[in-house]
Amino acid sequence: MDAFVMRRIGEVGFMEKPVPDGPEPTGAIVRTTCALVCTSDTHTAAGAIGDRVNLTLGHEAVGVVHRLGSAVRGYQVGDRVAVNAITPDFHCANCQRGYPSQCQEMLGGWKFANTKDGVFAPYFHVNDAEANLAPIPDSLPDDKAVYACDMMSTGFAAAENAAIPIGGTVAVFAQGPVGLMATVGARLLGAGLVIAVESAPDRIELAEHFGADAIVDFTRTDPVEEIRRLTGGVGVDSAIEALGSQNAFEGCVKATRPGGTISNAGYHGEGEYVRIPRLEWGVGMGDKTIRTTLCPGGKERMSRLFRLLETGRVDPTPLTTHTFDFSDIDTAFAMMRDKTDGIIKPLIRFPA
Amino acid sequence: MDAFVMRRIGEVGFMEKPVPDGPEPTGAIVRTTCALVCTSDTHTAAGAIGDRVNLTLGHEAVGVVHRLGSAVRGYQVGDRVAVNAITPDFHCANCQRGYPSQCQEMLGGWKFANTKDGVFAPYFHVNDAEANLAPIPDSLPDDKAVYACDMMSTGFAAAENAAIPIGGTVAVFAQGPVGLMATVGARLLGAGLVIAVESAPDRIELAEHFGADAIVDFTRTDPVEEIRRLTGGVGVDSAIEALGSQNAFEGCVKATRPGGTISNAGYHGEGEYVRIPRLEWGVGMGDKTIRTTLCPGGKERMSRLFRLLETGRVDPTPLTTHTFDFSDIDTAFAMMRDKTDGIIKPLIRFPA
Amino acid sequence: MDAFVMRRIGEVGFMEKPVPDGPEPTGAIVRTTCALVCTSDTHTAAGAIGDRVNLTLGHEAVGVVHRLGSAVRGYQVGDRVAVNAITPDFHCANCQRGYPSQCQEMLGGWKFANTKDGVFAPYFHVNDAEANLAPIPDSLPDDKAVYACDMMSTGFAAAENAAIPIGGTVAVFAQGPVGLMATVGARLLGAGLVIAVESAPDRIELAEHFGADAIVDFTRTDPVEEIRRLTGGVGVDSAIEALGSQNAFEGCVKATRPGGTISNAGYHGEGEYVRIPRLEWGVGMGDKTIRTTLCPGGKERMSRLFRLLETGRVDPTPLTTHTFDFSDIDTAFAMMRDKTDGIIKPLIRFPA
Amino acid sequence: MDAFVMRRIGEVGFMEKPVPDGPEPTGAIVRTTCALVCTSDTHTAAGAIGDRVNLTLGHEAVGVVHRLGSAVRGYQVGDRVAVNAITPDFHCANCQRGYPSQCQEMLGGWKFANTKDGVFAPYFHVNDAEANLAPIPDSLPDDKAVYACDMMSTGFAAAENAAIPIGGTVAVFAQGPVGLMATVGARLLGAGLVIAVESAPDRIELAEHFGADAIVDFTRTDPVEEIRRLTGGVGVDSAIEALGSQNAFEGCVKATRPGGTISNAGYHGEGEYVRIPRLEWGVGMGDKTIRTTLCPGGKERMSRLFRLLETGRVDPTPLTTHTFDFSDIDTAFAMMRDKTDGIIKPLIRFPA
Repeated sequence: MDAFVMRRIGEVGFMEKPVPDGPEPTGAIVRTTCALVCTSDTHTAAGAIGDRVNLTLGHEAVGVVHRLGSAVRGYQVGDRVAVNAITPDFHCANCQRGYPSQCQEMLGGWKFANTKDGVFAPYFHVNDAEANLAPIPDSLPDDKAVYACDMMSTGFAAAENAAIPIGGTVAVFAQGPVGLMATVGARLLGAGLVIAVESAPDRIELAEHFGADAIVDFTRTDPVEEIRRLTGGVGVDSAIEALGSQNAFEGCVKATRPGGTISNAGYHGEGEYVRIPRLEWGVGMGDKTIRTTLCPGGKERMSRLFRLLETGRVDPTPLTTHTFDFSDIDTAFAMMRDKTDGIIKPLIRFPA
Repeated sequence: MDAFVMRRIGEVGFMEKPVPDGPEPTGAIVRTTCALVCTSDTHTAAGAIGDRVNLTLGHEAVGVVHRLGSAVRGYQVGDRVAVNAITPDFHCANCQRGYPSQCQEMLGGWKFANTKDGVFAPYFHVNDAEANLAPIPDSLPDDKAVYACDMMSTGFAAAENAAIPIGGTVAVFAQGPVGLMATVGARLLGAGLVIAVESAPDRIELAEHFGADAIVDFTRTDPVEEIRRLTGGVGVDSAIEALGSQNAFEGCVKATRPGGTISNAGYHGEGEYVRIPRLEWGVGMGDKTIRTTLCPGGKERMSRLFRLLETGRVDPTPLTTHTFDFSDIDTAFAMMRDKTDGIIKPLIRFPA
Repeated sequence: MDAFVMRRIGEVGFMEKPVPDGPEPTGAIVRTTCALVCTSDTHTAAGAIGDRVNLTLGHEAVGVVHRLGSAVRGYQVGDRVAVNAITPDFHCANCQRGYPSQCQEMLGGWKFANTKDGVFAPYFHVNDAEANLAPIPDSLPDDKAVYACDMMSTGFAAAENAAIPIGGTVAVFAQGPVGLMATVGARLLGAGLVIAVESAPDRIELAEHFGADAIVDFTRTDPVEEIRRLTGGVGVDSAIEALGSQNAFEGCVKATRPGGTISNAGYHGEGEYVRIPRLEWGVGMGDKTIRTTLCPGGKERMSRLFRLLETGRVDPTPLTTHTFDFSDIDTAFAMMRDKTDGIIKPLIRFPA
Repeated sequence: MDAFVMRRIGEVGFMEKPVPDGPEPTGAIVRTTCALVCTSDTHTAAGAIGDRVNLTLGHEAVGVVHRLGSAVRGYQVGDRVAVNAITPDFHCANCQRGYPSQCQEMLGGWKFANTKDGVFAPYFHVNDAEANLAPIPDSLPDDKAVYACDMMSTGFAAAENAAIPIGGTVAVFAQGPVGLMATVGARLLGAGLVIAVESAPDRIELAEHFGADAIVDFTRTDPVEEIRRLTGGVGVDSAIEALGSQNAFEGCVKATRPGGTISNAGYHGEGEYVRIPRLEWGVGMGDKTIRTTLCPGGKERMSRLFRLLETGRVDPTPLTTHTFDFSDIDTAFAMMRDKTDGIIKPLIRFPA
């Protein structure tokens, strides 16, 4: 089969690979029907997590069960399934502690396109299938369900970690796809005022579409001052970092009121340190909490995300600004890397 | 009366002041019997929170109710009481949100020797007395009860914030009086292994006395590596910063396992930023939580701290390395500032 | 002034009373503009909490500050304010523990029309005014703001206590005004499926209006079986009891899956016991949690409820099925007692 | 091999069975070295969970890995291991929700001597071995480690569920082995006052040994009144039910202050209902929370329980009042059923 791989740092392309063997007793092989390209794929290809040789890229995909391990109960070949970007074993100490995204070691639940081949191929392998295969309800099309694999799970987790009091105030720094889903998540979880910090006009438009009550364009105003103004001088109950930059992180700490929560979802890719502004952190005594997340996986969470799609609470498909056949994924990938043509998420369709 | 004041930055001394007026309907005047000097008093005198002119110092004291406001119910003149270092009004929005230490504004519950006269005087004023006067049980002597005002409340809060799982592992960075009480707190809250990071021999001895299972002397070994070794390579569930330094904070983040909690109790007094080591923080996705605290006050918490003293769970009096009459508090203050003669906490006795 | 009182068990009517004195330094007197009658007022008048003689009824009202105690900061005579049904002192041990509705003693935050005169009068007294006066934003009319005093606060608290996972399933037993607001609350807090249990056609219509995804009419089907069917056989994550009956409570326990939460908001007025069905409770080992609530008060929560009204998240005014002048409150009261003419909430207007 | 089985309701005895086959890829076979008899084994044999035919009894055991499934990583034949009484698969929806004791269905994590053969045999089978085999540290003897399988895990979970504030007050109803471990757990988790309710002199003695501050003998005094008296009239913060009786449960609800927590660990074996006293429950509005537990399993928790044994926080071996060879387990079983000779826990030793 043709797989779309990272050949080495800075070089991607198609490569012939065999359909995955097996699987082992607890695994499964899924035939891919639909995938999304994530900005983090382009970071990986650029070397963010070190070199990888001929590793298949991609971690957001849905498909059909092709083969099942002998010990996997509750599924049948032919079942439509989604697989979260993060595939923990759910058996290790960190999983049992309640941190499956940190399976075995820090960030260890992240296996696709990191420690094993990803999903940009006609078939992909799923470890611990009984825990990680999420059946897709009949009413949900693949191109909607695929948003549960990462964008919804990560964006909503950012909101869940933000400890939003009912009717509380939330600022979401950056409105890329994760930030937009964090905006949706903040609305879903009872925020009374959601402030989106963004400057790109098309993303501002989407932020408003997804329920932001106010927009702060940080190129026109100091975002911390503007957030304070919008909250009667006190700052927000919760701030969500959805970018992975020092500026955004720092803005979150400054914009949050004492006793509030900073929820970090952004991948911080540079520098030795991420810096907390000392005074606005209350010199370490301001009761501000800083939390982080990595996309939570597992079929149970996926079933709840699907329910939100089924009952119409959320429709993430406006994020799909472009659609490509798998044979053209190199174009999608390049556009995602360069953020051209107002791209938010490119949907990849696989031949039946 | 003679009060011990900060005249201006860098200068302290006695000064004649009138016994406090009033009080207002909700306040009280307490006659001081016993106090402790805190290192933070010396920081304040050195200018850490800006200039103060002729402000009475001190925030750890017990005494006897001298006068009561007309609206204060449940107390009588002559009652033995302790008053926490932090005296919130318990009525403002932050108090109602559950963050009384941030009363009205960040750190706003800290009033003694900050926004009003402190307790180093024969009489002191207590705002919102019905919430802040804590009756001392008959079985408790003043020189033990006074430890509830700050040392126990802050140190234990650091442990409470640390989200220690039962039988979990905890590292406490620095074994000054707050760190020692954090060590006690970690033991009280079910830690299975408490690692104390310290280099001063007398503090190491106290750490062992108060229940530390292991000592890491950071002058002899890399504390992060040693903590990893002591925890089978995984790091601690919880780390407590009890110093207020970049090194200790950074060590906490590095020594904590994914999904763990860093609980900051130290007052960070320098620099524009406190820095999070990016990689060991899981690039913002490692499920590590950073929390902070400022000594929680209020009579209800004080009653629980007193219970721990009454039933013998804790005896903080080994912290009292020196005792002075109030007329000699200037000596105690200088020793605390310079940390001479192995001083941990100097107890100040007031004339009857 | 004319007050609408409970003369004795079973007898209500108007009575001349003086405008309240004072207030004391921490209190306030409010001139009433708008109120709501609650079913619990009719229970009180019928003797549910024992006899009361000439006690002014009512606990849901908004108005204008008429006089202020000398120690009350941050308000002015003439301010438009709402006062929650529950008016804790926020200073007692239970308040400091985080349970202000249980001020001083069980249910002790409930003072209006219980331990002091209520709000069905042209003027009413507010204790601990600085904590309990909630300024009404200019954009909110009185007849909308008044719903924050009890209906929204109680119904939403029922949903908050229900520990709803994002996208989770919730059943709300009974769709009276509190149940309807619990339905809204469950939607606000991220439920993926809200099932309303009700049989009255007009309440079913309102439940659908307020966002219920499915209706279970317990007169036509066994509600527990139907809820199981609607949830793929597993039961709901969370069940809310909004009636105060054995049947509804029992249904909640039975309809909840293991590890789920039963949130009780109903006032259970009869019998020595409320009974937990033993087997469906997992013989005491099923990880089901039963929580209860009494309308949470305080200006901070009120400000968040007002925000939800301001940003249009909620519009409770469809609950207002009838409107009366204060002089006709006896008619409103009788209709509420007898539940005639499809009454949900009667709004009472006071002369300017 | 000889297994000790329940032949049918009311009849137990030895029976020849083959050493377990396999195991399957994810399972393991353990050679038993040491076990404990639990009162619930005698309930099972008496028919409490219905009939079972020739089912091996027992759920508390440690041993040595005899054979390992092909997919089990991280263990070797010959490793000393403990296996918790509850062996979830950690992959199902309930496990992923955080309720592994409710694996697949209510109480579904309880497999030994319920849905599969138990541990009273020279060899026993372990499902999902990678999650359920808990390596025993070299420093711990088998006869101490075996207490982690149920007694410590259940008793401590009861305390963890009790939401004890630091320095808070706790009442533990009944001081059988689970109640005694709940007493230890309450001490471990920071309770300032632990009140043990018990009447048997030998259990009272053990309660005092394990750290109870006060004993309430319910045959001599009304326990609720006495607990109120011991807590200054307000009741305890937390009450633990460690018996499974209506009287104890009811006492817990009554003895708990508003806003407190009732933690149920007892198995309620009789009647259609367990009854909540309505008035003391605050008519459903008293902010009292009722939680339940079933012994939490998994190797991660076991490792923390072992740490508490290793660092000497707990020594449960005083519970071992009697020791038997496996060939005499019928005697131990009969004594446990009839509670003769002051038996608390009989330790069963298996031939090497």
